[in-house]
Amino acid sequence: MTSALYDELIAKLRKAHVLGSVGDLLMWDEQVNLPAGSAELRGEQQAVIAQLHHAAISEPRVGELVAGLEVGQDGPLDDDARTVVRWARRDHDRATKLPPEFVREKAEQGSRGFHAWAKARAASDFASYAPVLATNLELAKREAAYLGRGDSPYDYMLDKHDPGMSAAIIGPLFAELAEGLAPIVRTITSSGKTPRTLAPFPIEGQRTLLREVTERIGFDYTRGRMDVALHPFSIGSGADNRMTTRYDTPDPLDSLFSAIHEAGHGMYEQGLPREHYHTALGQAAGMGVHESQSRLWENQVGRSRGFWAFFEPRLRELFPTQLADVSSEELYLAINAVEPVVIRTASDEVTYNLHVILRFEIEQKLFSGELAVADLPAAWNATLQRLVGLTPTSDKEGVLQDVHWSDGSFGYFPSYTLGNMVAAQLWATMVEAKVASDDDFARGDFSKVLDWLHANVHARGKRDTLLELVRRATGRELSPRYLLDYLRARYLPLYT
Amino acid sequence: MTSALYDELIAKLRKAHVLGSVGDLLMWDEQVNLPAGSAELRGEQQAVIAQLHHAAISEPRVGELVAGLEVGQDGPLDDDARTVVRWARRDHDRATKLPPEFVREKAEQGSRGFHAWAKARAASDFASYAPVLATNLELAKREAAYLGRGDSPYDYMLDKHDPGMSAAIIGPLFAELAEGLAPIVRTITSSGKTPRTLAPFPIEGQRTLLREVTERIGFDYTRGRMDVALHPFSIGSGADNRMTTRYDTPDPLDSLFSAIHEAGHGMYEQGLPREHYHTALGQAAGMGVHESQSRLWENQVGRSRGFWAFFEPRLRELFPTQLADVSSEELYLAINAVEPVVIRTASDEVTYNLHVILRFEIEQKLFSGELAVADLPAAWNATLQRLVGLTPTSDKEGVLQDVHWSDGSFGYFPSYTLGNMVAAQLWATMVEAKVASDDDFARGDFSKVLDWLHANVHARGKRDTLLELVRRATGRELSPRYLLDYLRARYLPLYT
Repeated sequence: MTSALYDELIAKLRKAHVLGSVGDLLMWDEQVNLPAGSAELRGEQQAVIAQLHHAAISEPRVGELVAGLEVGQDGPLDDDARTVVRWARRDHDRATKLPPEFVREKAEQGSRGFHAWAKARAASDFASYAPVLATNLELAKREAAYLGRGDSPYDYMLDKHDPGMSAAIIGPLFAELAEGLAPIVRTITSSGKTPRTLAPFPIEGQRTLLREVTERIGFDYTRGRMDVALHPFSIGSGADNRMTTRYDTPDPLDSLFSAIHEAGHGMYEQGLPREHYHTALGQAAGMGVHESQSRLWENQVGRSRGFWAFFEPRLRELFPTQLADVSSEELYLAINAVEPVVIRTASDEVTYNLHVILRFEIEQKLFSGELAVADLPAAWNATLQRLVGLTPTSDKEGVLQDVHWSDGSFGYFPSYTLGNMVAAQLWATMVEAKVASDDDFARGDFSKVLDWLHANVHARGKRDTLLELVRRATGRELSPRYLLDYLRARYLPLYT
Repeated sequence: MTSALYDELIAKLRKAHVLGSVGDLLMWDEQVNLPAGSAELRGEQQAVIAQLHHAAISEPRVGELVAGLEVGQDGPLDDDARTVVRWARRDHDRATKLPPEFVREKAEQGSRGFHAWAKARAASDFASYAPVLATNLELAKREAAYLGRGDSPYDYMLDKHDPGMSAAIIGPLFAELAEGLAPIVRTITSSGKTPRTLAPFPIEGQRTLLREVTERIGFDYTRGRMDVALHPFSIGSGADNRMTTRYDTPDPLDSLFSAIHEAGHGMYEQGLPREHYHTALGQAAGMGVHESQSRLWENQVGRSRGFWAFFEPRLRELFPTQLADVSSEELYLAINAVEPVVIRTASDEVTYNLHVILRFEIEQKLFSGELAVADLPAAWNATLQRLVGLTPTSDKEGVLQDVHWSDGSFGYFPSYTLGNMVAAQLWATMVEAKVASDDDFARGDFSKVLDWLHANVHARGKRDTLLELVRRATGRELSPRYLLDYLRARYLPLYT
């Protein structure tokens, strides 16, 4: 739609979005290109752009426009305009309801917290990190209160990453998932099957492979790039999407799956309606949905029989000596290796979710006060033993392993498993509709999957919450059943 | 110094400078990294940042602060503060005295002009380009008038690139230079000596060589980078300096000398007082001085006997087959090849200045009205014949060869030759003081030259005009004598 107020709002959102994209580019460049001695200038650049971005979205006129449009001052809004205004309200409130001193305090604490975490982790010294966590918890609660969610601060944190999400919704889903995972993990670990360890692959071949794979599955390199960074990430909208990866890992397939994962994020952004990328209509629905896209390509597609039927010959061409004595079945088992470990990021896709469920349980208890920060290491180890059957040998390998809480990013972990559930449910629908088929994949054709995701997920922008999106795309409520079914179908035949 | 008004001004200049540096980074990224399909977003980003940068420097409060400081409202200014305020006045006036419609018109015309030039050049069709030049001349005169220089628009253009410069100053210098160059060129071209053409060098070796060379002469890679771009350039302050080069050229040493040139620009920026890089005290004095730094390293140092005594063995190590049958003297002559050609950018350092003098003569006549745009090709060819002894076979190789005038960059060319003159005069002083010596270079030690430039050129920031800087650093007035002496000393022994 178009109207005087609405058009003015769109122009202001456009400017804010463009400034945000400049901030993203500064961040990308910092990780990929910045000379070591240039950090001070980069800090100044980021501070100036962040302040201008904040000013653009918190401008009083934005509040007036949103308020005017909400009460129909410019006539009734159509559905799309309602989505745009709803999100402008959310972003404007976030930008204006937090006092500047609080924002500064939180940013400073986040930076201090990161360094304290890095030090504590290196020394496996939880006691030195505990005060940081206590302060971060306190700040999170204050933030929720500023936004009118003082009565449910953890739900506020969940909703921040996935709009509409709450512990009451996630709790039963994760409980059912944990219950269903236990026998799968038992079957696999007791099968006696041990995947082979592959010999390292030369970096040049890894680079060639992952470029070919990500291009073949549908990442559009005329609107994106792949570079090297210490910690792989992606930034950018569909207009300019930048992925990163790294090559110097002991697992020779790690760079490939990490790249497919990032390409999944990138293809989501590239699939969002291009003409709307300045507003909620052209932006990602949330962390969980984003993760569903990366995981679907990484796991459901990337570890499938059809995918490897197509790419195995190329893999053997690139790494003939490394794979000379590895049979096709041995290769496929290595690609789908499952082995419970204490580190979340090193986990396979079967046990990974148990690590997330652990963090969800602990975050709830930290926010409710049921668990004191000082008791965290013990609670962590007990929960890991119960869910995964392992106990870390040190806090470094346990409660100190993740960076997230160091800057107060609570409520973030659940999105990973929500993403896995959404991916599996979308996958089930695509398999049923013959959109996802090993036959197509074996011919190197992944276009039906991408087209279906474009139409059913990407095109929606932020119109739906995660739950609404799943309902609309699959015709069913979100359930862990699909993830469990998928894991059983993929892994049990391999591990019996 | 510090005072309420002054500190407030510094804070505002800092913000403007940081925004300018973000604009630079967007430009660098566009040339080095931007995916082909992402140009639209980049255009939006650049427009938003340019508008904010302009707003920061044209803010009325900046005008008030400058005016207050100029009349001593905050007490007397020390020398440094006077420099800062003088430049803030200049930048603020430039930003406020040009009406926004004029700025837009000029930008649009610049973009149209570039495309018209590219088309006209491809077709060697001057007639289609002539109206662009007429409009650009008209706009340049209007711009000068807005800035109060309507009576001397060409001097305004010269002063834009090199503060304090005018045609009355440049005219006699260039005339003396042209007169001195003629016999040198005659001696060389009639010597019968023909430098050998070297075989192409593999790119990997070129990359290794130019990294080693630029690092060895003193470019600080902890605060800078070298990347690949279609047209080599550098951006950034000493805080983050980014050079570019290209490798796919028929001349195997082209990438090296281009890189030394860019490193010269970069070392100037890196040598500016770091704590002042937000103000005139920590910024480059002008185009001519900047060019003096790049040319000094590229030519005076980079083509010297000492430099090659040190680097020749490494060059032979990297390109053993290519140089197998090339003697040291043949190599040195190839490095110092002189051959008059019709293209400025393909010219050696002896005849290069004649191409600049041609443009200076023609620009003066265009601005005075003595020469009509329609008569440009004929005037160009006649002047080239008189100065260089050659006539282009087409306008493509003649009046259409340069991009500069297409967006109205008049008065830019003279800076190149001013830079060459300054470089030679600084060099003469350094040779006299034994700061520049083939013995040091032959041992790979270039530090005395860099230290001397730091102390005598870089540390000054914008405190001096080009003429003042030369006087202060060399104890003598700017004169083409030093450039002529240098060229004679370097080239006549090689070409007799």
